[in-house]
This record gives sequence, C-alpha cells and structure tokens, in this order.
Amino acid sequence: MADQIPRVVVLRLPMYARVLSGLVKENRKVVSSQELGARLQVTPAQIRKDLSYFGKFGKQGSGYSVKKLLVELRSILGLDREWSVAVIGAGRLGKALIKYPGFAPQGFNVVGAFDNNPHLVNKKVGKVTVRSIDQLEDSVQELGINVGIVAVPAPEAQNVVSVLLRCGVKAILNYAPAVVQVPKDVQLREIDPLLALQSMTFYLKETRTPRRDRGVRS
Amino acid sequence: MADQIPRVVVLRLPMYARVLSGLVKENRKVVSSQELGARLQVTPAQIRKDLSYFGKFGKQGSGYSVKKLLVELRSILGLDREWSVAVIGAGRLGKALIKYPGFAPQGFNVVGAFDNNPHLVNKKVGKVTVRSIDQLEDSVQELGINVGIVAVPAPEAQNVVSVLLRCGVKAILNYAPAVVQVPKDVQLREIDPLLALQSMTFYLKETRTPRRDRGVRS
Repeated sequence: MADQIPRVVVLRLPMYARVLSGLVKENRKVVSSQELGARLQVTPAQIRKDLSYFGKFGKQGSGYSVKKLLVELRSILGLDREWSVAVIGAGRLGKALIKYPGFAPQGFNVVGAFDNNPHLVNKKVGKVTVRSIDQLEDSVQELGINVGIVAVPAPEAQNVVSVLLRCGVKAILNYAPAVVQVPKDVQLREIDPLLALQSMTFYLKETRTPRRDRGVRS
Repeated sequence: MADQIPRVVVLRLPMYARVLSGLVKENRKVVSSQELGARLQVTPAQIRKDLSYFGKFGKQGSGYSVKKLLVELRSILGLDREWSVAVIGAGRLGKALIKYPGFAPQGFNVVGAFDNNPHLVNKKVGKVTVRSIDQLEDSVQELGINVGIVAVPAPEAQNVVSVLLRCGVKAILNYAPAVVQVPKDVQLREIDPLLALQSMTFYLKETRTPRRDRGVRS
C-alpha cells in the first residue's frame, strides 16, 4: 500500500494527527474538513482528498468523528506502538535529543546512545549510558533499534548511516549538515536548520535592508 | 520574481550551494549536471530545469563552472550578505541553537536571545545576553532582526510568532511542536523531529516487529 500513497500526503498525516489530538483534549467529538483545513492552513478539499486514500472516514455533511479518525490515523502511521531509537553522536545536540522529553510520550523510546569520544563513552545521559560507536553494529540487534538519529559531525555522517543500513535500520533522521545516501527502501529525513534558513532568505531579498544602510536611530 | 519560482526549487537550491561549496574545497573547476545529480540524488534533467529558472549557467556539453554557479546561487539565495537572527526561548534547545557554531560562517548571526524565565534573563549564553521576552518588540528594531528562531514550548509559540510578525519579521524558523499561523508574505519553516519520525513509521509498518514478540535471545 505504502507505494500508492503520495509522499506529500504521508508527510501531512502526522500534522492531522497532532491537530486531532488537540481536539480530543478540547473534548470535541466532531470536526469538519473546513475546520481541520483552517487549523492546518490546507484547503478542505485537500484534507478530504488526503484522507480518501485510506478509506471513507466522514459522512457527507456531518464531519469526522475526532476520536475515530485519530485512532485510524495513528494506526495508519504506526503510532499505536513503541519504536526503539538510537542516537548516534552524544555531543551538545545529541545530548539534547537523548533528553528530549517529547519523544517517549509519542512512542519513540531512546534506548541507545553512541559516540566515539572516550570521555563520553560509559557516561550516563538521561536514561541511557553512552556506548562506543564500535558497538553500534552489535547493539542495533541487541536493543532492537528501529530508528537511528544521526547527530555526528558532517564528515562522519555517511559512515554512521552506512553502519545503520548494514544492520537493517530502515528509518534515519539525519541532523548532520551533510548529504547522505540511502537505498530506496530506507526512509531518510533531514533536520537541517541551515538549509531551512537558506531557503527563506531567497524570499527576503526584496524586503531586506543591509544593516549598515539603516542609519543611526536618533 | 520570487512568485514565479516553484517553492520546491527554492528548497533545493541551498543543497546545490552546499554541494558546490564542497566541490570548491576539492578544487574542482567544472561539474556536470550528471555529477551534481548523483551527489544530490536528483536527476540531471531536474538540475538543468531548476537552474533554468534563473538564466543560462552552463554550456551544452561542457558542464557548469563550479565557482561561477556557486557565486550566482549564493546571490540568488541572499547568502552573500549577513542576516541578524533572534532566538526566542533560551532553554536546553534554545541554548544549543544560540551556541551552534554552524550559523555564523553562513552569514546567520545570532544577535539576540529572549526568554520569560527570570533565572535566564541577563545571563550570558554564547556571545549574547538573554533579554526578557517583554523586550522582544523593542529589540527587533534595535538589533535589526531579520530572522526569528522560535524555541519556546508549544503553547507559547503562536504568541511569540505574533510579536515577531507585528515587528515586521518575515522569516521564522519554528522549533515548537505547534501549528502556527503566518500571513502569506511571511516565510515559515518548521523543524520538527517528531513529525519527521512520525512520517517514517508509516513506511516501516510492513517490516516492523513489535518488541514484545521478538522473543528472548538465548
């Protein structure tokens, strides 16, 4: 089935699930595609089309059952179970990720951390003890890792990714500012603030004023 | 001009610039669309099409001048000048962002940091002193902020974004796991590891084995 769903739809579904979770907390029973659309800055038609890939969820004119749609979406996305995550790289960023309190409540449990710095190995960070990166290959099996988060410097990223691939990890979240290669059957997402910043300044050019021309405030 | 360029093209351009910077360091003078494509996991035709929006860069059959193309792309993207960035939220994530050594060499200078926690206000983080979030509105002008990075908890995100919008900031990088609203003329990028993770597990369903079924290793 996965092949038949456009990638952009799959990228939007977690947002839908997040908004629906908010509606559950507000004790809302039913929501229209209009309201969902307004909350997500997507047209109602887009929402109906996205959801139609997975079956019929709402009745014409009566909206979606918030709880039912959320349960369905969580099942579709695989969010109704637990995933075991390894963080590779336990520097400043890696430590923040290991300790990030937002992962576990959503089913993503950081069960392993790895670094090649001997000062970090065997140190406790959050709930895990950092292992040597040499142990990564064995540990993926032992810990049942499904997802790898890569937080190493750019020149080491491809090596780490290659080890993860060799161990059969099929989902990689890459924080290293490097282009890494994975085969088609592996999911790769990049978290790259620089690329995000650099894709915004394109649009600022018309409005931008170099600081030195702005003059002194009197 | 900005309106005529597809958003996906603009999102790819910073990747092109990054690969070209790497080629400059390798002392490469010329690169083909084939090689650029292979390094970026994009087809050569896609690269030629993306670049054609901005004029003629290469000669048929002889490839692109690495340096010339990089200079052009950096100018197109507005990376040939300095941008002043404010980080709002100076918790664990905010601190890591303020100190992140990758921003300044690319022209993104963190010149202001803000938090509502009195224990953080007036503390020095990296090169900046954290200010009270009440000062945000005045400081945007004073510091000439072009870009806001939002690293506050989800419930506070929209408020902070609204203040930035009121001050005329047109580029916002949002790390808060919240859906925030901005007008059409404002650029918003989201850095959201949870959404990224949740969009990968969809594809893992076929391969996944719940941990409890995996049995005990003997």
